[in-house]
Amino acid sequence: MTTRFAVLGAGRIGQVHARAVTSTPGARLVAVAEPHAAAAEAVATAYNCDIRTIDEIEASSDIDAVIICTPTDTHADLIERFARAGKAIFCEKPVDLSLSRVRACLDVVGETGATLMVGFNRRFDPDFMAVKAAIDAGRIGKVEMVTITSRDPGAPPYDYITRSGGIFRDMTIHDFDMARWLLGEEVETVMAAASVLTDPKIGELGDYDSVNVILRTASGRQAIITNSRRASYGYDQRIEVLGDKGALSAANTHEANIQFAGEGGFTQPPLLNFFMTRYTAAYANEIAAFIAAVNAGATPPTSGEDGLLALALAEAALKSVAEDRAVRVAEILG
Amino acid sequence: MTTRFAVLGAGRIGQVHARAVTSTPGARLVAVAEPHAAAAEAVATAYNCDIRTIDEIEASSDIDAVIICTPTDTHADLIERFARAGKAIFCEKPVDLSLSRVRACLDVVGETGATLMVGFNRRFDPDFMAVKAAIDAGRIGKVEMVTITSRDPGAPPYDYITRSGGIFRDMTIHDFDMARWLLGEEVETVMAAASVLTDPKIGELGDYDSVNVILRTASGRQAIITNSRRASYGYDQRIEVLGDKGALSAANTHEANIQFAGEGGFTQPPLLNFFMTRYTAAYANEIAAFIAAVNAGATPPTSGEDGLLALALAEAALKSVAEDRAVRVAEILG
Amino acid sequence: MTTRFAVLGAGRIGQVHARAVTSTPGARLVAVAEPHAAAAEAVATAYNCDIRTIDEIEASSDIDAVIICTPTDTHADLIERFARAGKAIFCEKPVDLSLSRVRACLDVVGETGATLMVGFNRRFDPDFMAVKAAIDAGRIGKVEMVTITSRDPGAPPYDYITRSGGIFRDMTIHDFDMARWLLGEEVETVMAAASVLTDPKIGELGDYDSVNVILRTASGRQAIITNSRRASYGYDQRIEVLGDKGALSAANTHEANIQFAGEGGFTQPPLLNFFMTRYTAAYANEIAAFIAAVNAGATPPTSGEDGLLALALAEAALKSVAEDRAVRVAEILG
Amino acid sequence: MTTRFAVLGAGRIGQVHARAVTSTPGARLVAVAEPHAAAAEAVATAYNCDIRTIDEIEASSDIDAVIICTPTDTHADLIERFARAGKAIFCEKPVDLSLSRVRACLDVVGETGATLMVGFNRRFDPDFMAVKAAIDAGRIGKVEMVTITSRDPGAPPYDYITRSGGIFRDMTIHDFDMARWLLGEEVETVMAAASVLTDPKIGELGDYDSVNVILRTASGRQAIITNSRRASYGYDQRIEVLGDKGALSAANTHEANIQFAGEGGFTQPPLLNFFMTRYTAAYANEIAAFIAAVNAGATPPTSGEDGLLALALAEAALKSVAEDRAVRVAEILG
Repeated sequence: MTTRFAVLGAGRIGQVHARAVTSTPGARLVAVAEPHAAAAEAVATAYNCDIRTIDEIEASSDIDAVIICTPTDTHADLIERFARAGKAIFCEKPVDLSLSRVRACLDVVGETGATLMVGFNRRFDPDFMAVKAAIDAGRIGKVEMVTITSRDPGAPPYDYITRSGGIFRDMTIHDFDMARWLLGEEVETVMAAASVLTDPKIGELGDYDSVNVILRTASGRQAIITNSRRASYGYDQRIEVLGDKGALSAANTHEANIQFAGEGGFTQPPLLNFFMTRYTAAYANEIAAFIAAVNAGATPPTSGEDGLLALALAEAALKSVAEDRAVRVAEILG
Repeated sequence: MTTRFAVLGAGRIGQVHARAVTSTPGARLVAVAEPHAAAAEAVATAYNCDIRTIDEIEASSDIDAVIICTPTDTHADLIERFARAGKAIFCEKPVDLSLSRVRACLDVVGETGATLMVGFNRRFDPDFMAVKAAIDAGRIGKVEMVTITSRDPGAPPYDYITRSGGIFRDMTIHDFDMARWLLGEEVETVMAAASVLTDPKIGELGDYDSVNVILRTASGRQAIITNSRRASYGYDQRIEVLGDKGALSAANTHEANIQFAGEGGFTQPPLLNFFMTRYTAAYANEIAAFIAAVNAGATPPTSGEDGLLALALAEAALKSVAEDRAVRVAEILG
Repeated sequence: MTTRFAVLGAGRIGQVHARAVTSTPGARLVAVAEPHAAAAEAVATAYNCDIRTIDEIEASSDIDAVIICTPTDTHADLIERFARAGKAIFCEKPVDLSLSRVRACLDVVGETGATLMVGFNRRFDPDFMAVKAAIDAGRIGKVEMVTITSRDPGAPPYDYITRSGGIFRDMTIHDFDMARWLLGEEVETVMAAASVLTDPKIGELGDYDSVNVILRTASGRQAIITNSRRASYGYDQRIEVLGDKGALSAANTHEANIQFAGEGGFTQPPLLNFFMTRYTAAYANEIAAFIAAVNAGATPPTSGEDGLLALALAEAALKSVAEDRAVRVAEILG
Repeated sequence: MTTRFAVLGAGRIGQVHARAVTSTPGARLVAVAEPHAAAAEAVATAYNCDIRTIDEIEASSDIDAVIICTPTDTHADLIERFARAGKAIFCEKPVDLSLSRVRACLDVVGETGATLMVGFNRRFDPDFMAVKAAIDAGRIGKVEMVTITSRDPGAPPYDYITRSGGIFRDMTIHDFDMARWLLGEEVETVMAAASVLTDPKIGELGDYDSVNVILRTASGRQAIITNSRRASYGYDQRIEVLGDKGALSAANTHEANIQFAGEGGFTQPPLLNFFMTRYTAAYANEIAAFIAAVNAGATPPTSGEDGLLALALAEAALKSVAEDRAVRVAEILG
C-alpha cells in the first residue's frame, strides 16, 4: 500500500521531510503547502508534487497524511484541523508551549481517533537506537542511572530565544524525552539549576544558557542532563546508561573518522556541528517510522503523550529553578 | 543541464548505481539493460525507467551516458562499443584482467575521444577523501610512507577465485590504486610475499590468501599493503600516511558509534562487514563525480589509465612472488 | 636538606606512603608506629627503619614530620598532638567525620602554626593534573561547567558503611574536592538526589548507593557529580570541564593499552579496578608534594581547610536529600 | 636468596639499571664500574654501593652477577670475561655488530655454562606483554600476520650513525626481535626496501632513514616492519597481530590520557617521546626478569641466541636491499 502525503511548510525541516517521503517505499508526496511562492516552487519541482493551500489539502481526498513543519504557534490548531479531517498527522515537537493547549489538542486527537506522531528525532538516531536496543536486549540488566550531555555550538538568535519558551522548553525538552525513553520509567521529581554564563543578554531576555537537571523516578532511578547553549567544539550529543550489569554509551559524531598526528599531538576533526547534519539519518528514520505505522495501521512510536510529558518536565524544571527545590511532576500535571 | 543515463546490468552494483543516478540532480535514469527479466523489471519499477537491450541503448539518441555493471569479461567490449557510439562511459574496475586487452581498449577510447571513468570506489570514501584533502592541503608536508591495511571478512566462493585473476588482480588492485593516489608519485618497483594461511583449497586453485607488498617510487617514497582474505573481526579498511610534518590516518567504520562496558572490558560493535555497506557513501560519491564531470565536459577523476596502472602493479606483484625479487614496473609495462 | 619521617599506621596506605618516603630524594623514613607487631616488622625490614610507639615518635628529636595512616577516628587527636609537638603533618582525609571536630582541630593547628597537609590523592593523579594545568594555562578560557563521574566497582563491607559517615562523607567527598579544585570558585548551593539501587541492605543501614549532585557557585558556574557504589565494569573515574573556549577531559585507565578484535566486536581490557592501583602515581606524587613543601618551608598544596570545605559540601548534600531542596553552604558553615 | 650485582657503565642506561636492581627484592647493588669519576660517584651515592674497576669486579667474590652497560664494542669481550669468571651476565643488545664475533662470544658462554641474558627491552613492555599473553592464551588462534610500526622522533647524531651499524642493525633490530617473538616461528626469508627521505646526509653516511621489511616463515606466516628515523608526532611504537580467530594490537602511549576539544577539533597530547620514558616500565621489568632467573637458577627469557638471530635478520635485510631480492636467512647463518 502507498500512503499519500502533504507537507505543510517548506522551510528547512519541511524540505528534509519532503525528501524523506519521496525516497521511502510505500509513500508518495502529493502536495506541499507554503506561503512563500519560491520555496513552494522549489519543493514542487524537486520532488515533482503539487502546490496546494492548507485548506485545499484539508479537503483533498487524495491525501492520507500530513507532515506539519509550520511555525510552532500553528501546530496545535493544524493538528486539530487535520485530526478532524481524518488525516494521519506527523508534527515536529512541540505541539505547543502551553501545557493546557497541548492537553486540549490531544483531547481532540483522542476524540477523532486520528493517528498522531510527535517527532522526537533523537530517538531515531542510529547510535542512540543501538544503545536502546542493547538495553532492551538486557545487555546492562536493570537501568539505574542515565547521563545526557547536550550542548549547542552556539545560542539561537535573541529573537528566537524570546519566542522559544526558554532553554528548558526548547532545548532540554529533547533530553527530557531521551531520559524518559532510556530510564524506562516515568520521572517523579525534578531538580534543576540554571545560570547565565555565555551571554548576559540571554539573562536579560529572561532565559538561561547553562543548566543541569536531576530526574528521579519512583523506584529511585536517576538521570542527569547537562546543557549549555555554547560549546566551542561543536554540537555535543552524548548519552550514557548505567545498569546493574554494565554501561552503554554513544559518543559524538565527527566530521570524518580520521586523525592527524603532529608536533602538537593527535587531532580528530570537529563534530558535525549542525543539528540537521548531525541527525540526518535520524530525520529520515523518523519519517520512515511514521510511514510504516500509517501503512500498518499501527500506533506510531512517539505520541502526543510523549510531547506532553516532556513539556511537563520542562515546566517542573522551571519551577525547581524558581523555588530552589525538588518539584514533583504531579504538581505540574495536576 | 541533465545527462540521460542507462545502466547496463541490474545486479547488486547496478542497482546501487541506478539509485545513485536517480537521486542526483542533473542526472536522469532513462533505461536499464538486463537479461534477467525480473531483475530488469525491479529496477524499471523502482526508478521509473525503460527496459532496453544493450543494442537498443547503443542506438538510443535519448541516452548520453552508460554505467557498465555487467560481468568483468564483457567490460572491454562494451567500453569500445559505447565509446564508438559517442556515449560517456562509467565502468566498474577492472577494464579487463589482461593488460594487453586493457591497453587495446583504452586505445579505442583514445581514438574516439570518449569520456571514460573507471570506478575505484575507495577514492570516494568520505574518510579517505578527508585524508587526501589534508595531504593536498599540505598538512603533513611531503609524503614519505603509506600504510594500507585491507582485509576481507572471508574469502569469496572458490568458483569466483578461479575467475578473479587472483588476489592481486581482484583484491590488492584497490590498494594499488589507493597507494598510487596517496603516494602522489608513480611506483617504480614492487616486492611482494604471498602465502596460503586461511584455506589450503585456495592454494590448490593457484591463488594466495595472505599477502604483503612493498611499493617504491623513484624518489624513494614507499607504501606497504597488507591483505588477508580472512579477518574474523570484519571488513578491515585502514590507511595511514606519514609525511615530514606529521601523519594522517583513517580508521575503520563500526556498525554503530557506541560502547558497552562490562565485566569483560569495554567493547565496540563489529565493523561494517560488507563492502557495499562500508562503501555506501563512496559509491554514491563516485557516480556523482562522474555525473559532474559529464555535465561539465570535464575529465573524470579516475581514468582508464588508472585502471591500467593498478593492473600493472598486480602483474608486477605476481612476478615478484614467482621470482622472489623486486620487480620494476617498467618490466611489466614494457 | 633531608626531612626525617615517621609513618603512623602500617596498614595498606601506610605501606604505600612508607615506600613513597623511602624513594623520594630529600626524605628519610626514620620510624614506623604500628600496634600489630608483624605489620610493624614488615615495614621496618622493607624500608630499614625503627619501630617506635606514637608516644616515642612524639618525643623524638630526630623526626621532623609524620604521616598519619591510622583509623579515621584517631586523626583529629593525632593532628593536634603532633601540631603541638612541632612536627609537620600529613594526614589522609578526612580529619574527622564531624564538622565541629574538624574545626576545633584546625584551630589547634592554626594556633601552633604547624604545617598540615590533608591528603586528597586525586589532585595528584597525572591525568587530572594535566587537565588542571591546561585550565590554569587558559586552554579553555573561563570554566563554566564541571562533570565528575565517579563509580566504585562495588560497595564496601556493611560494617564499613556504618562507620563511614555515609556515601557523601566517604565517597562523594573526593568529588567535592575535585569540583572545588576544578571550578576555581567556592560552591554556594548544593542540590542532591540519592537512591538505593544496588543493594537494599545499604538502605537499611541508613545509607544510599546512587547519588547525583549539582553544585553552583556565586557566579553561576556549576558542577555535577554522579556516583554509584557499583559499576560492573570497574573503578570509573572521569572528569570533564567546559569553558568558554573549549573542553578538557580525562578518561579512565585500563589494565593495558591494548585491543582485541574478534567476531563480537572490538574490546579493550577492564579498568584498573582498585583505588590503590588506579592511583599509584597519585599517592606517590602526593607524598612528594608534601616533602617538597616541608623542605621548602612552604604551604602544602592541600590544606585542612580543603578537608573542612569538602566535608561541608557533604553535609549540605545530606541536608538537600533530607529536605528535597537546594541547600546553601552558608547554612552548614554558619 | 639475594643476588649481588655490579653495574658496568654508569651512563644513562646504567643508572636506570642500577635503580632497578636497588628497588627489586632479592637483589643488591654492590658495585659500579665507570671511568668517569663524577658519574661513578653519583651512582655510588644514590644507591649506596662501592666504586670498583672492572678488573676488581671480575675478581670480587661478593658479586654474583653483572649488568653490562658499556659501549657496544666492549660487549663481547666483557661477556666472555665475566662468563669465564663465573658471573651471571645481563648485556644490553647488541652483543656485537659482527655476526661472527657474536657467534664466537656465544660459543665461550656455552662452554662456560654461564647465564646470559641479552636485553630486548620491548618484550617487557606491559602492553606488548599483554598482547603476547593473549596470543599465548589462544585468544586469536593461530598467528598469521604481524605488523610492527616503529618510528623514532628524530635521527641520532651523524657520529652515532657511522658507528651504529646502520638502521637495520641499530633500530630495526628491535622490531626483528619483536617479530620473531610474536610470529612464534623462525623467519625464513627477508625482503626489504630502504630509502633516504628525511636527510640526504644520512645517505651520504651510507645509511637509510626509511625502511620497510617483509619477513616470511616456513609455514607462510608473515610480518611487516615499517621504520622511519623521523616522526614529527613522536616516538611511534605499535604492534598488531592477526590470527585466525581475531586480531590484537597495542597502541601508542601518550604523555597523558586527556583530551582537549576546541574549535579546531579534538586533541590528545603527544606521545611519550623518548625511549627511556616510553619504556620505563619495560626496563624495570627486564631487570626483574633477569634477577628472577638468576635467583631461580633458570634460563633468562631472552638469550644470546635471540641477539644472534635478530642480527642475522638485519644482515639479511641489508643484503635484500643491496641485491633487490628476497634473501633466505640460511644464506646469512650458513
